[in-house]
Amino acid sequence: MAGPRLTRRGLLAGGAATAVGALAASAPEQEPSRTAVSTGAAVEPFHGPHQAGVATVPQSHAVFVGLDLQPGVDREAIVRMMGLLTDDARRLTGGRAALADTEPELAALPARLTVTFGFGPGLFSTAGVERQRPGPVRPLPSFGIDKLEKRWNGGDLLLQICADDGLTLAHALRMIIKDARSFAGVKWVQRGFRRGPGVQAAGSTQRNVMGQLDGTVNPRPGTADFDRAVWVTDGPDWLRGGTTLVLRRIRAEMETWDAADRVAKEFTVGRRLDTGAPLTGRREHDEPDFDRLTPVGFPVIADQAHIRRAHVADPGMRIFRRVYNYDEGLTPDGHADSGLIFASYQADITRQFLPIQRKLAEADLLNEWTTPVGSAVFAIPPGCAPDGWIGETLLS
Amino acid sequence: MAGPRLTRRGLLAGGAATAVGALAASAPEQEPSRTAVSTGAAVEPFHGPHQAGVATVPQSHAVFVGLDLQPGVDREAIVRMMGLLTDDARRLTGGRAALADTEPELAALPARLTVTFGFGPGLFSTAGVERQRPGPVRPLPSFGIDKLEKRWNGGDLLLQICADDGLTLAHALRMIIKDARSFAGVKWVQRGFRRGPGVQAAGSTQRNVMGQLDGTVNPRPGTADFDRAVWVTDGPDWLRGGTTLVLRRIRAEMETWDAADRVAKEFTVGRRLDTGAPLTGRREHDEPDFDRLTPVGFPVIADQAHIRRAHVADPGMRIFRRVYNYDEGLTPDGHADSGLIFASYQADITRQFLPIQRKLAEADLLNEWTTPVGSAVFAIPPGCAPDGWIGETLLS
Repeated sequence: MAGPRLTRRGLLAGGAATAVGALAASAPEQEPSRTAVSTGAAVEPFHGPHQAGVATVPQSHAVFVGLDLQPGVDREAIVRMMGLLTDDARRLTGGRAALADTEPELAALPARLTVTFGFGPGLFSTAGVERQRPGPVRPLPSFGIDKLEKRWNGGDLLLQICADDGLTLAHALRMIIKDARSFAGVKWVQRGFRRGPGVQAAGSTQRNVMGQLDGTVNPRPGTADFDRAVWVTDGPDWLRGGTTLVLRRIRAEMETWDAADRVAKEFTVGRRLDTGAPLTGRREHDEPDFDRLTPVGFPVIADQAHIRRAHVADPGMRIFRRVYNYDEGLTPDGHADSGLIFASYQADITRQFLPIQRKLAEADLLNEWTTPVGSAVFAIPPGCAPDGWIGETLLS
Repeated sequence: MAGPRLTRRGLLAGGAATAVGALAASAPEQEPSRTAVSTGAAVEPFHGPHQAGVATVPQSHAVFVGLDLQPGVDREAIVRMMGLLTDDARRLTGGRAALADTEPELAALPARLTVTFGFGPGLFSTAGVERQRPGPVRPLPSFGIDKLEKRWNGGDLLLQICADDGLTLAHALRMIIKDARSFAGVKWVQRGFRRGPGVQAAGSTQRNVMGQLDGTVNPRPGTADFDRAVWVTDGPDWLRGGTTLVLRRIRAEMETWDAADRVAKEFTVGRRLDTGAPLTGRREHDEPDFDRLTPVGFPVIADQAHIRRAHVADPGMRIFRRVYNYDEGLTPDGHADSGLIFASYQADITRQFLPIQRKLAEADLLNEWTTPVGSAVFAIPPGCAPDGWIGETLLS
C-alpha cells in the first residue's frame, strides 16, 4: 500500500517550518519533533475503488456510530444525506473544512482521518432496495455465548471514523453527525483505541487489553489473499469493490482473567503470552502444529484452544480483523468495563465469518473470559470518484 | 526540561531492531517508523523533588480518577496504600510490570507514562492530620456560573494518569485501581485527550474542542516564573515542592457556540480564531493592548472579553493550565457531550486561582458557552526518592 500523502495545507497548519527549524537544532533525544509534519498532516486518500478505513493501516483512535433513519426519511432523502456526508468526508479527510464547518481550524490536521460508511438492513428496506441487500446483511443468528444488550445492537447506517489524533476525530465526528441528524438519530457510539504511531514498530502485532498479541493471523493488505478475503467480487453488482462488516462488542472479563494463571491462559489461547508463538513453536509467526502431541498423548494445542478453533486453512477464506480496544468508566468498586470492538471485514459473511463464529461459540476456552454484548452487520459500499458519492451504486 | 529517556527494556519491547531495520530500507514517506522507538519507549522520570505529570510536557491521553476512602480506613491504612501505589507507579512509569501485574507485557512500553497523586480534604481528616491541610484545599466557594453535578465533584484521593498511548494508560489505570480498591472506592472518572506526539509542532499551542488556541498565556516549565507560580515554597513544610490542583469539568455548549458567528466568537474571546492573536495584535504571542480603542471610542478588547478577564500581569501569579479535552457519547439527537477537563496547578489557590475565577465568573462573555459541571481540589504532595513514597512528608 502507498504511504499516506502530505498536503501543503496540512504542512503549513502543522507548523512544518517550525518543525524543520527545531530539527536542525535538535539533540538526538528530541527526534519526536521530526514527526510534527508526518503524523498530523498525513492524508489517507478518500477516493478509489474501495472506501478507506478497511485496508488502511489502523489509526490509533476510532469511533463507530450506529444510526437509525428518522421516520419519514425515504430513498430521496437517503440520497441527499449520502451526498452531504460524502462531501463532508471528502473534505475533512483531505484536511479541509466541511462546507458549513463552524470550527474550520480543527480540520487542518487530518492525521490520517478516514470516514467509512456502512448500510444496515433497515436502510435497504427504507430505500425500497430490499432485493439488493446481500442475504447475510441482517442480524447474526444468535449464539449460546451471546449476552447481547439492545443498546449496542443493529443500526441502519454505520459511521466508522478513525484518525491518529483525538481532536481531529472529535471534530470530524461532530461535523458529520450534525449533517446526519436531520436524517438519522444516534443509536449507539463505540470509541476505541490502539497503539499510536511510533509506540511500537510499524506492522508489528498489537496486544489487546487482556495482554494477548491480537491479530497474528490476519490477511495482509496489499496481498492477493487480502483482496480475495475482503473485497466483494461475485456478490451483487452494486457491492463490487465493497465488503461487509460484522461489528461485535466483546467484553473482557478482566476480574476472572486475572485470576487465571499463565499456564491456564496460554493453554486457553494456544499461544505464549510473551512472544505470541503457538505452543508448538518459538516465534509469533511460526505455523501452529495442530497434530503435535505431548509425551502422554494429548494435543499440545488443545482441541478447544482459541487458535485451533479460529484456524482457517485457506488464507483467502479468512476474515480480516481490524480490532480496537475499549476501556470505559470504572464501577465504584474499581472494576473496568473494557474489551474489544471486534470489527471483522469479509467478502462473504456466510462463507467466511459464520463458520469461524460457530466453531468459536461451540467450544473455545476463551469464551470463559469474553462475552459478546453487542452485534451489528453492515454492507460497506465501494469507494467513489471525486465527482461521486458513497452509495451511488445502490441508490442512484 | 530534559527530554524523555529511553530504557533498554523499552527499546527491546518496542522492537527497536525491527524499526532500525525498517528504517534502513525505508522511503522518505515511511519515516514515521523511525519513531517506533521514541514514542513507546520514552520514560518520564518518576523520582525527584516534584511529582511528574505537572511540569511534564502533556501527554496525549489522560485519565483523572477521584476516589473516596472506604469506611474503616485510617492513617495506617493510608500509609500502606500510598506505599503500594507509589511502588506501582514507580514500576509502571519505568516500563516495568507492577508487583502483582497480571499482564506484565502491557507494561513494557511506558510511552511517557506519569502517575500523579493528590490528596483531597477528606484524606486529611481521615488521617488525623487536618491541621496540615492547606486552607484552600476544600471545595471552592460556589460561583453563579456553576451547575455542578455531584457525580463530578470532590474526592479524597486523586489519581492523574497520563501517557502517549491509550493501551499503556488503560493497563496502568487497572493495575493501580486494583491495588487501591481495598482502601478506596471510585467516585468519578474523567478521560481526556490532547494532540498526540507529532501531530503538530512540539511546543505549539493546542486548540480545544471549541476551536480556540488554548493556553497561549501559560507559565513555561523550566522558567523561574513557572517555579514561582506552581511549586509551594512558603506553605506547610510537608507540601514544599508540591502544588495544588483545581480540577474543573467545563462543558462546552457546542450547539449555541456553533450558532454564533466568527465576529461574535472573536469578540467574546478577545483573540482571532485562526492565529490566536489578540484583537490588538497580529501574532499569537503579541501582548494584548487592553487600552486600545476603536475609532468610535470602545475598547478593541471588550471589558468582558475572556482574555481581559483572565489576564494576570505578574507571571509568577498566574495559574498553570494543563488542560485536556473530553468528548463522550452523543445524545440520540446527535448532540456532543464535550468540553474541557480544566486542570489548574498553582502554589496558592487563594492568591492565584480564586481572583481569576472570580473575575471570570463575574463577567466573562465566554460563560455564555461554557458551564462548569464538576469541581474538585487537591493538594499535590512533592515527589519522592527511590526509597520513598508519595505522601511520606505528610503521613510518616
